[in-house]
Amino acid sequence: MASTDTTYYDNEQLPRAVQSQDMEAFDGGSTSATSFSMKTFTWLVLLVQVFGLAAVVMVAVWMGHFRGGFAWQSNPLLEFNYHPLFMIIGMVFLFGDAILAYRVFRNDNKLIIKIVHACMQAGALIFASVGLKAVFDSHNLAATPIPNMYSLHSWLGIITVVMFGLQWVFGFVSYLYPKAGMASRRMYMPYHVFWGIAILCFAVATALMGITEKVIFTNISYNKFIPEGVLLNCLGLTIVAFATLVIFLLTRPEFKRPPGPEEEHLQLSE
Amino acid sequence: MASTDTTYYDNEQLPRAVQSQDMEAFDGGSTSATSFSMKTFTWLVLLVQVFGLAAVVMVAVWMGHFRGGFAWQSNPLLEFNYHPLFMIIGMVFLFGDAILAYRVFRNDNKLIIKIVHACMQAGALIFASVGLKAVFDSHNLAATPIPNMYSLHSWLGIITVVMFGLQWVFGFVSYLYPKAGMASRRMYMPYHVFWGIAILCFAVATALMGITEKVIFTNISYNKFIPEGVLLNCLGLTIVAFATLVIFLLTRPEFKRPPGPEEEHLQLSE
Repeated sequence: MASTDTTYYDNEQLPRAVQSQDMEAFDGGSTSATSFSMKTFTWLVLLVQVFGLAAVVMVAVWMGHFRGGFAWQSNPLLEFNYHPLFMIIGMVFLFGDAILAYRVFRNDNKLIIKIVHACMQAGALIFASVGLKAVFDSHNLAATPIPNMYSLHSWLGIITVVMFGLQWVFGFVSYLYPKAGMASRRMYMPYHVFWGIAILCFAVATALMGITEKVIFTNISYNKFIPEGVLLNCLGLTIVAFATLVIFLLTRPEFKRPPGPEEEHLQLSE
Repeated sequence: MASTDTTYYDNEQLPRAVQSQDMEAFDGGSTSATSFSMKTFTWLVLLVQVFGLAAVVMVAVWMGHFRGGFAWQSNPLLEFNYHPLFMIIGMVFLFGDAILAYRVFRNDNKLIIKIVHACMQAGALIFASVGLKAVFDSHNLAATPIPNMYSLHSWLGIITVVMFGLQWVFGFVSYLYPKAGMASRRMYMPYHVFWGIAILCFAVATALMGITEKVIFTNISYNKFIPEGVLLNCLGLTIVAFATLVIFLLTRPEFKRPPGPEEEHLQLSE
């Protein structure tokens, strides 16, 4: 296993006997290069926030301005409008930022970051749950009820949310409480990372299908390059840019969190 | 850079001074673990082929059986039907299998595999080009012409194909002819891998939007769980499963191609 290696670097001549216990990402814990500085990292994280916030603003404008605004069960048609808004806030923006928590707070206490990561993902799940409630209500409470769960969007969407929930539970049980043994945690980490990325990609693909469904069902002149159509196309591309940059930042070895003395201590004492 | 490290393993006590020159994937060239055997790898590669072929068969049945079959410019409505078929053959099936070429032919001559990889990707680009011709024709030659390039599907799709073309050119120039210097090749490889995976994901997301567009425009009783609707939902999920498994096989360090004596020789002599 990579995490038990003792590795010496030709360039730096620094011993690095202790590797971070839980940071075995896609790369299995490979070396940190220096081709990107931390300054670049900071700018790219800011760019991620710009993409994420822009996506949330765009979907809010789409639903709030072009689609008549928001309501709860009193108006199922407008209740639907919470669905895209809450799913993008939860399953894209919060989800992506939670993934980056370990990279952004690279010098903070590991346990605190774990809790932040778990809380952000729990927040994502709450937004997703309310978003799902909104769409089921909008189908079931409509004057002429609309069938549920028939589309590819709904099939991939429900798979995505269920996998997200399972991933949260497995992560919590393994890394927070009751916490698995070191060997199990290490063995599970690459899978936690892989499926985290995969589920984010599934969420993005589901969002793009949802945008496509909504605009066609809305029966506007989408093919005339009207402002609403251009807005939602930009929304879709912004979501793609957000997720791509999140995954780039996560998988580049030079942006990995360095193991600190705190973790050496943790590792030695466990 | 990971590729210039001299790494010793606690477990195996094997020096590994020479790393494969072009195989710095997502993981920056980390160690090979043994948790998955090559037998597992073989079964998973077979499963990838099952998913890929199933997707091609499903889209062929959808277009050939449910949507009236195929024609060229004499019948623009049926010419459209080549679009999903050729895009899935090229931008999903061939693309994914070309990505896996280095893993599947792990013990063969590196130059030969490079050529196989480049040829398969060229084949993917040819299928994609004919697939694009089919959709533009079906819009432009229709009795009432349909505007082009207005949808999110078309925007992300054209970005995907252009990026795929650029990736092919950069890859060819860097690794085949005229071939960049060793340092440049090494520096570019993680980006070639990252963008290869990203473009495959973009292609899958575009396909899912295309499936969604097509079924809604077709104006069938999609929400009644009719066979055609269930078939295309399964098609979408199969494409997702195919790409997920391709990326899993590509990014697991234990499935990486081991550096052979051939590459040591190449590396030493260059």
